[in-house]
Amino acid sequence: MKVITTVAEMKELRSQLAGSVGLVPTMGYLHGGHLELVRRARMENLTAVVSIFVNPTQFGPSDDFDTYPRDTERDLALLEKERVGVVFMPSAQEMYPEGFSSWVDVEKITERLEGKLRPGHFRGVTTVVAKLFNIVQPDRVYFGQKDAQQLAVIKKMVSDLNMNLEIVTVPTVREPDGLALSSRNTHLSTRERSAAVILWEALYHAQELWGKGERSAQRLRQEMTALIASEPLAEIDYVSVADPETLEELEEIDRPALVSLAVRIGKTRLIDNTTLGE
Amino acid sequence: MKVITTVAEMKELRSQLAGSVGLVPTMGYLHGGHLELVRRARMENLTAVVSIFVNPTQFGPSDDFDTYPRDTERDLALLEKERVGVVFMPSAQEMYPEGFSSWVDVEKITERLEGKLRPGHFRGVTTVVAKLFNIVQPDRVYFGQKDAQQLAVIKKMVSDLNMNLEIVTVPTVREPDGLALSSRNTHLSTRERSAAVILWEALYHAQELWGKGERSAQRLRQEMTALIASEPLAEIDYVSVADPETLEELEEIDRPALVSLAVRIGKTRLIDNTTLGE
Repeated sequence: MKVITTVAEMKELRSQLAGSVGLVPTMGYLHGGHLELVRRARMENLTAVVSIFVNPTQFGPSDDFDTYPRDTERDLALLEKERVGVVFMPSAQEMYPEGFSSWVDVEKITERLEGKLRPGHFRGVTTVVAKLFNIVQPDRVYFGQKDAQQLAVIKKMVSDLNMNLEIVTVPTVREPDGLALSSRNTHLSTRERSAAVILWEALYHAQELWGKGERSAQRLRQEMTALIASEPLAEIDYVSVADPETLEELEEIDRPALVSLAVRIGKTRLIDNTTLGE
Repeated sequence: MKVITTVAEMKELRSQLAGSVGLVPTMGYLHGGHLELVRRARMENLTAVVSIFVNPTQFGPSDDFDTYPRDTERDLALLEKERVGVVFMPSAQEMYPEGFSSWVDVEKITERLEGKLRPGHFRGVTTVVAKLFNIVQPDRVYFGQKDAQQLAVIKKMVSDLNMNLEIVTVPTVREPDGLALSSRNTHLSTRERSAAVILWEALYHAQELWGKGERSAQRLRQEMTALIASEPLAEIDYVSVADPETLEELEEIDRPALVSLAVRIGKTRLIDNTTLGE
């Protein structure tokens, strides 16, 4: 396994790789969800490249950049075990040298949900992802369904800017009780960890209602909101039933819908989602 | 010569091209300056691709999009004569389908000179250029020195976003009296055409003063401003003596400098520039 820390070395190595390349962009502190992406990338490409970069530009001033969990040694051991070919692990200075001033910006769908609560977040995401795409030049890039809006934003960027790669979506990996795997779960106390299952319960409840024929998005939002409110440690940022591409809130669920949540459990902000009718 | 009008066909054709590709992005209505770029692209690459696209997003509401000169038949005949391999000539609908909402934005150096007078102009330029780069995937891209700020902005974008290509700068081609070739020159009446030489005269005067040892940027700006003011048909938008990379105005010319002008001759806005000490 090659561990690369500079852009120049990564580009040089890439120019020597024959055959298809699959990229898994991560912020490290890898869990089973990441490893699922890695396995898909290995299976479908001659070379799998995993990037580890806690991207400062996607964190706002009140976000958790400083406390975002990091453990490079453990990450590298996990990737070695998965027989990954290349790990790209640049410094912030390498990715954002002094005077850096170019940005990729997706409008409209970035103004909703996560984007509304975390202004500038998606500009940081699309910019770093565009940079990684240019540095690694992958044929396929693997993202988890857990970050549904991020996925929609990146797909829009790739399509609008005519980027030459395929975005592969991999289903969310969950704990046995339904909690979506996330590096941020590590911050949860035992009591909070129990409370956190409320996100999945709310999504599951929405699926059930929809399965029984409920087609009012407002009804679903109300039911989920009430359920989450019953958990004293949970505080809702948003509960959304929206069009999966435009992320516009639906009134009637007359097409496939993305149900998504952001809920704070104590100081930890968790997101999760499911789709209806897809 | 292949003439391609859709993104999909251009990508398909590109995937079949072996060897290096040189791209010359143009807005058509080709003149000797463009043809110089084309010859360089042909000389230095196995395949030369010329794009012709009057990009609506780089024109502001008060700019000359509607009256920008167009003559596709003549352009194609000229490119055929230069033995160009591929012409990419997409429609606006093809480049900006409904719901398009992704942009590449270079900050700071786009806020000066042209960017100050034409808000949003460079966002349109960088976005369409990034799209063309992704569609054509060139090894080298050819730009004229005439659009000096555009060149600086594109170089900054390529560097910041780690794009995989080389930007080649080609010197400005001039009429015998010094007027820089420009598609917009076609708008000039006979009287205005004579007056338009004032841009080159002012730049030449700056070069002379600098050659004699003048190092005050303010003095150069004053001298050029006075000279241009002596031409009744000329109205100055800006006269600049700046750092060639940051475009910050200089006080003392203690390093290479970019001297640039924007002057309206009647209704036609012309730009030109020269460098000192490079």
